[in-house]
Amino acid sequence: MSNFTKPLSKLIGHFEKFPGIGPRTAQRLALFVLKQPEKNIREFSKALLEAHSNVGHCKICFNLTSGNECEICRDTKRNKNIICVVAETKDLLALERAREYKGLYHVIGGLISPMDSIGPELLEIRSLVERVSQSQIEEIILALTPSVEGDTTSLYIGKLLTPFVKVTRIAYGLPMGSELEYVDEVTLARALEGRTDLI
Amino acid sequence: MSNFTKPLSKLIGHFEKFPGIGPRTAQRLALFVLKQPEKNIREFSKALLEAHSNVGHCKICFNLTSGNECEICRDTKRNKNIICVVAETKDLLALERAREYKGLYHVIGGLISPMDSIGPELLEIRSLVERVSQSQIEEIILALTPSVEGDTTSLYIGKLLTPFVKVTRIAYGLPMGSELEYVDEVTLARALEGRTDLI
Repeated sequence: MSNFTKPLSKLIGHFEKFPGIGPRTAQRLALFVLKQPEKNIREFSKALLEAHSNVGHCKICFNLTSGNECEICRDTKRNKNIICVVAETKDLLALERAREYKGLYHVIGGLISPMDSIGPELLEIRSLVERVSQSQIEEIILALTPSVEGDTTSLYIGKLLTPFVKVTRIAYGLPMGSELEYVDEVTLARALEGRTDLI
Repeated sequence: MSNFTKPLSKLIGHFEKFPGIGPRTAQRLALFVLKQPEKNIREFSKALLEAHSNVGHCKICFNLTSGNECEICRDTKRNKNIICVVAETKDLLALERAREYKGLYHVIGGLISPMDSIGPELLEIRSLVERVSQSQIEEIILALTPSVEGDTTSLYIGKLLTPFVKVTRIAYGLPMGSELEYVDEVTLARALEGRTDLI
């Protein structure tokens, strides 16, 4: 739309850079900004800068935090003997939403991907090995996405750690509520492979 | 998620206030902010404040603009004898995307809605009547949503203006590419009602 006044089209341009935000949504968000009281927009603008400059990575698990250690690592109620390995903070958040896991995490920051020149040295795998060697860890749960990169990374970490600690991987299989008929072949094959005893 | 560090959960809260942005999208957007270079976030924050403080309404048609008159009103190539009446700026933008209309606009800022205590005096209808009386307008096209409020507003404006100028309404009917079978009854009834000669 060439008919936008410049400050507005600039703002729309900024919104369009966000993941999953197309031109129309960007437009809607920018028009929403104009309708808000100035106070709200000042606060939003402040929150953006504050979050950006104050939030860093936890020294232990590399989760996002504004201090040295994240709230999960500081939480005394959590099981300190299990570490769940995830690729990104958003995966940690997804697991937290499930409210099933009560142990600690380790956010490695991505997956091994030779195609994108991401080798294990770019990920927080070394720090994970150090953590395992320095504290009483009983189990490492690998919760990486079921993909070539995820499997490669799981195998790599598995080879490094199985001599020292029990390493498991979260189950791959049918999602809850799915119809067998519509599930893709790879998932079905994985579900068959991962079958467990009924009782 | 109680496990968020405070600056981050604050930022997520701000994103959640936007229309159509749920908790998960807000999370994704906030995490995206943290990954950006500081420069980008400073610019975004500035663009927000600038758009908010510099963009106002066009004195003539109430479209958004950073000057006194919007770019459409200033555009000498547009037909100054037709005014298309829309409820909101986003409707104007939708029409502009269609690239069919080359006249001017009048953004009335909403629809008459007794349920929400929005009477005609809260809308830019008086200014529309003034515009019609002061300049050489040949046609007013009403482009308001097909709803009780839209129809009420169209009728209200129609009654005020038909003595002075030709007033038309955009067509209601089947959307392009739709299957007759799946179109709702009200749309079908309106499409029948609005039938036109084939040749």
